Amino acid sequence: MTAAGDRIGRVVWFTGLSGSGKTTLCQQLKRSLEAFGSKVVVLDGDDCRKGFCSDLGFSHKDRMENVRRIAHVSALLQQQGFHVLVATISPTEEIRAVPRRIVSRLLEIFVDTPLHTCEMRDAKGLYAAARKGQMQGVSGVDAAYEAPLHAHLVCRTEHESTQSSVRKIVACLGL
Amino acid sequence: MTAAGDRIGRVVWFTGLSGSGKTTLCQQLKRSLEAFGSKVVVLDGDDCRKGFCSDLGFSHKDRMENVRRIAHVSALLQQQGFHVLVATISPTEEIRAVPRRIVSRLLEIFVDTPLHTCEMRDAKGLYAAARKGQMQGVSGVDAAYEAPLHAHLVCRTEHESTQSSVRKIVACLGL
Repeated sequence: MTAAGDRIGRVVWFTGLSGSGKTTLCQQLKRSLEAFGSKVVVLDGDDCRKGFCSDLGFSHKDRMENVRRIAHVSALLQQQGFHVLVATISPTEEIRAVPRRIVSRLLEIFVDTPLHTCEMRDAKGLYAAARKGQMQGVSGVDAAYEAPLHAHLVCRTEHESTQSSVRKIVACLGL
Repeated sequence: MTAAGDRIGRVVWFTGLSGSGKTTLCQQLKRSLEAFGSKVVVLDGDDCRKGFCSDLGFSHKDRMENVRRIAHVSALLQQQGFHVLVATISPTEEIRAVPRRIVSRLLEIFVDTPLHTCEMRDAKGLYAAARKGQMQGVSGVDAAYEAPLHAHLVCRTEHESTQSSVRKIVACLGL
């Protein structure tokens, strides 16, 4: 379905705990890529869950279906020449294998921020709710987050600035 | 979620029988809008069904879910400043009401090509299969296609050129 003149885009898949800084990196990377003249779409996991994935919960099956849909939307957009930046926890190797099967030229980035730092940020109040037992299935608390084995790049938001992380990613994309 | 500087895009929703010319109009409209410097995404119903909607069939419930997802993806993209062109049969008023609820600034376009013309084109062999009883639920044959009551524009591909239809749509968008 690639129209003449369109070049296939790249998909950058950010994985990491809630509060690790995925969305911040996405937004900054978007601005950098747009400065190069690229067309960029951001698929934020929270927005997807409020929208085309709003029928899904947090069971293993639903998490698999959630990333399956996001990966297919990404593939469809990259075929039309867009770069797609995805920010979603995608907590296990099995889940992260889904976009690798569906998307070509995927760059997987592990936003490696320790749990205690994410928990101190807690912008969404997720961790507080989990600690009080008001919320179940929070990755890092009562649900597993497996550190990625296949990440192309690791961003340590505690030790490097957003700008420095973005520079690394742009270099890795070879754009 | 609109980033600073992004303007909300328009969603153009093409409805009509299979073979009516929705995809052709989409592709030509895309080129015209891009010539104005717009960022444009095409969501073709067939591609969506092969991708993020591949778990869905053609029951009423599944058709409703299919357009719900497409509408939410459209809304997410329009929030990022993209114009989104959707080509999907969306055969009933109830189904077409779904994107109207989800998407703001929607332009609904009825691609009004008579069944016998669509059947003569039959690029996908859909009608032949339906007539032989090898395929069920084909809109216009053994499933209803209700002519839209709320279309902003009607394109009669038998009586007007693609270029002329696209000019009408662009004028209607006021871009």
